[in-house]
Amino acid sequence: MKEDFRRNENENLIFGRNAVLEALKADTPLNHILVTSMTGSLGAICAEARKRGIVVKQTDSRKLDILTGNGNHQGVCAEGACASYATVAEILAQAEKKGTPPFLVLCDGIEDPHNLGAILRTAEAAGADGVILPKRRSASLTQTVFKTSAGAASWIPVARVSNLATEMIALKKKNIWFFGADMDGSAAFQTDFTGGIGIVIGSEGFGLSAPVQAQCDAMVSLPMFGRVNSLNASVAAGILMYEAVRQRQQGK
Amino acid sequence: MKEDFRRNENENLIFGRNAVLEALKADTPLNHILVTSMTGSLGAICAEARKRGIVVKQTDSRKLDILTGNGNHQGVCAEGACASYATVAEILAQAEKKGTPPFLVLCDGIEDPHNLGAILRTAEAAGADGVILPKRRSASLTQTVFKTSAGAASWIPVARVSNLATEMIALKKKNIWFFGADMDGSAAFQTDFTGGIGIVIGSEGFGLSAPVQAQCDAMVSLPMFGRVNSLNASVAAGILMYEAVRQRQQGK
Repeated sequence: MKEDFRRNENENLIFGRNAVLEALKADTPLNHILVTSMTGSLGAICAEARKRGIVVKQTDSRKLDILTGNGNHQGVCAEGACASYATVAEILAQAEKKGTPPFLVLCDGIEDPHNLGAILRTAEAAGADGVILPKRRSASLTQTVFKTSAGAASWIPVARVSNLATEMIALKKKNIWFFGADMDGSAAFQTDFTGGIGIVIGSEGFGLSAPVQAQCDAMVSLPMFGRVNSLNASVAAGILMYEAVRQRQQGK
Repeated sequence: MKEDFRRNENENLIFGRNAVLEALKADTPLNHILVTSMTGSLGAICAEARKRGIVVKQTDSRKLDILTGNGNHQGVCAEGACASYATVAEILAQAEKKGTPPFLVLCDGIEDPHNLGAILRTAEAAGADGVILPKRRSASLTQTVFKTSAGAASWIPVARVSNLATEMIALKKKNIWFFGADMDGSAAFQTDFTGGIGIVIGSEGFGLSAPVQAQCDAMVSLPMFGRVNSLNASVAAGILMYEAVRQRQQGK
């Protein structure tokens, strides 16, 4: 299965020095750039990428051969995104325009594109203002995510930040409260989601990274009555998002 | 992807006339049996299968060659289930033992094993008494379902019935109310889930079959604020199951 994900995700590759440089200059939405070196003419491409906040990863030529199907990659390959990324400021501006307290969803290390796609689909339906992802160790806006989201990835604003915990510190000053999904949290159904909120979803099995967990105002859990007692990340995210929807309609 | 599902689902094959007959006589949990003919010695196998309520499907020899990797199938192949099926009576008996109103989940045409696995996982965590599937046009207890359920498929009782609508008629006499998930239903958050209930989930896109829809006491929908406005079947199922959990804890 993992192999299939990878193949699907790379449907949208741009490779070769000129092609990648032109894509950058045209502000084409990109997930990241892979280079075999960060010096010489590739160094100039790296600088252009960084100027636009696009992650640059170093790899070896053999990996690019495989990715591009032995294409003439000249040591550089960019993965196109299925939609443009938004900024956190744009997401907040949209919430303000709506006149409702911000409703954000933060994904901390969701690497499975099917789970990210399902989360974007639910966030869009639930009327969340936007989704925030870290630039590294996370699925990005690939074709697989787009398909799994049933197209919602085009409509829900998605921002990518270098450091999720740092971003949370800045957002808390704007009166946004963060609730991390966690097995050992307090009861989600007793938690007030009616203000400015960010629901933080960890990787499969409810795993939040320590720095992100440290910035959460509270950890919340769902009641569990079985033996396995864990939920799929996108299902857990959906239940929490719709509990926020319910409370915002009916009051806590 | 579809191809992969199929391959994964067939990890658990039993083939050859004696092997299948012995599996039947030992009451091995099976999803269904494929035969190239229903007469002669294969007819005897078909009769044994039907006696145990196992679906028999006719196919051609070439398909069995592919399924078994050119194994010596002698015209018959059985797909093993990852867990035993329960009966509806057993599910109701378990609910009665708990002393709480029955909490059932019915899947009407969930064919994607990943969705069925996620639904079983959530149903087990939410403390549902059991899940009811139709024998035909539905994913069954395959290895892929088991893996996606994180093992919950071994713990939550799953019954298979020949006709879901007929089963609902019988269950309604036992004071169970059926709520079908539907885009055009009334608001799920205004619906009372505290009594004996069956939540009925249709195939992807909330599609319930007409006979099943006709037996639902009410159709329920989730509020939708976006442009795509549909949810993944396992996410929708999870939100409805946990709304029932919330109401049963806090009251409607």
